[in-house]
Amino acid sequence: MERPRFVIEASEVESMAKESGLTVLQLLPSLVGSAQKLARPPISKFHVGTVGLGSSGRVFLGGNLEFPGLPLHHSVHAEQFLVTNLAVNAEPCLRYVAVSAAPCGHCRQFLQELRGASDIQILITSTEDGGEEEPRFRPLSHFLPHRFGPDDLLGKEVPLILEQHDNGLSLINDYHYDLNLEKLCNGGGNRFAELTSAAFEAANKSHAPYSACPSGVALVDTGGKIYRGSYMESAAYNPSLGPVQAALVAYVAGGGGGYEKIVGGVLVEKEGAAVIQEHTARILLQLVSPQCEFRVVHCRSVSNGLKKA
Amino acid sequence: MERPRFVIEASEVESMAKESGLTVLQLLPSLVGSAQKLARPPISKFHVGTVGLGSSGRVFLGGNLEFPGLPLHHSVHAEQFLVTNLAVNAEPCLRYVAVSAAPCGHCRQFLQELRGASDIQILITSTEDGGEEEPRFRPLSHFLPHRFGPDDLLGKEVPLILEQHDNGLSLINDYHYDLNLEKLCNGGGNRFAELTSAAFEAANKSHAPYSACPSGVALVDTGGKIYRGSYMESAAYNPSLGPVQAALVAYVAGGGGGYEKIVGGVLVEKEGAAVIQEHTARILLQLVSPQCEFRVVHCRSVSNGLKKA
Ligand SMILES: [Zn+2]
Ligand SMILES: [Zn+2]
Repeated sequence: MERPRFVIEASEVESMAKESGLTVLQLLPSLVGSAQKLARPPISKFHVGTVGLGSSGRVFLGGNLEFPGLPLHHSVHAEQFLVTNLAVNAEPCLRYVAVSAAPCGHCRQFLQELRGASDIQILITSTEDGGEEEPRFRPLSHFLPHRFGPDDLLGKEVPLILEQHDNGLSLINDYHYDLNLEKLCNGGGNRFAELTSAAFEAANKSHAPYSACPSGVALVDTGGKIYRGSYMESAAYNPSLGPVQAALVAYVAGGGGGYEKIVGGVLVEKEGAAVIQEHTARILLQLVSPQCEFRVVHCRSVSNGLKKA
Repeated sequence: MERPRFVIEASEVESMAKESGLTVLQLLPSLVGSAQKLARPPISKFHVGTVGLGSSGRVFLGGNLEFPGLPLHHSVHAEQFLVTNLAVNAEPCLRYVAVSAAPCGHCRQFLQELRGASDIQILITSTEDGGEEEPRFRPLSHFLPHRFGPDDLLGKEVPLILEQHDNGLSLINDYHYDLNLEKLCNGGGNRFAELTSAAFEAANKSHAPYSACPSGVALVDTGGKIYRGSYMESAAYNPSLGPVQAALVAYVAGGGGGYEKIVGGVLVEKEGAAVIQEHTARILLQLVSPQCEFRVVHCRSVSNGLKKA
């Protein structure tokens, strides 16, 4: 029908359910097919779609992203896309998820970074494995018993993903002008400063309680539109979602087309820290959009906002 | 006591158990503390140790590895170390695992790449979560129900991790002499050719059925000793273990000391393929051993050995 959407407002969710004679929870699996169409998996050709219901009543869609020419850990799973989509839209809580295939262990682990993760209800629409019963919602605790997660490492007062973060960062580079980026960014004014400011804001919202190395990325496309992504860390380290991946989710969910339309990117992170995104971010951006101008701007912690950073 | 060992022969396992008045299965958790001491986690300082019993009766130890200055997805979890250690020592089957902390979702997923994964018995020695009952062995299927894994994507005839692989590769570069690498490698003869040959052999044994992009790495240290690692792919993509990580496991388990003693490395992989390790391998080696000379040698598939490659 119309252009695919990644967020459906609560009022429209209600009327969609009413029109179809379904409850809202029954509506979620019926949208999984639409979510699968939004995936971009050029390597596996395996389209995974997720549909999530937030506490606001809004519905969010997600699909998996893959990037040929790099190691597979660069991939973004549909469940990670979904969580990032909620974060971009300031949704406070994920309650229900319908997904086209059994969530992998990596995703079950990543979802632990949400408050009350054990109670997130998950329904798998494909019933291939056993073909046993009708698909139904089961809590995440069923899918990952004896979980290792934030509770093992953090105090209860430390914010989790989707909760408000303020990493108390301050920029240290002189970043006020960059001619190459100016030429690429449409529109008047100092777009490099604007891009840096967006990346800085994303870094300040980044969830990095384990390494204390938050980071953020802002991308700009040929139309001059800016997309931002915050690094999101997992207690289990490897399932962490990189800042470029988060920004690419914002790009796809925000209506961005081919990645080659991304013309500029700024990464804000700490210098000489335990976790450094710079080299990996450059490799990924270089690959998806070879002409993209990429800059790194360093920051440092100046205050302990809501948590240690 | 003596130098830490990563493999204990079956006969010694039997006598250790007898001396302690334990069964072999009771011996496994008693060795977890020794395994934790072998970990190298400079970021988290969280020492995870694993002890595994193979079908040969040998016992294998593993610990987690972390690499400061890179994104966290470079980390090797103790369970991945353990599996790699079995692979390096040509152990055909992993039966029992004792581990110091609840395996994360990433590891539960990675373990799916073993034949009969659901039946691997896992015991967690820390009983913090709930403090409920005495630690006991439970099958992996208990820890990752509704699994997504090789069964969903591969035929039964495709070899899994620890099973014999022959990717039918052939080298295409002219690699017969490299002066810089010769200078670094002790001993006479053409060590670069030897290193390339070891990396090629590792690539041929690589488990990469999802991308058809196998790869292997060989490292040489200041003493002239060669360590090899095969890329191991996960059906869920992100938990895949890179070839440099696998070679670093071989280095640590093979008695290698500080990473700075690694002076040369060769990666063998396909050119222009869906998965390319080169850039990421270079970043990791550059970081752990800045003076390491690194070369990439390309290969191609010439035959379908035991599986498509
Ligand atoms: Zn997943
Ligand atoms: Zn793990």
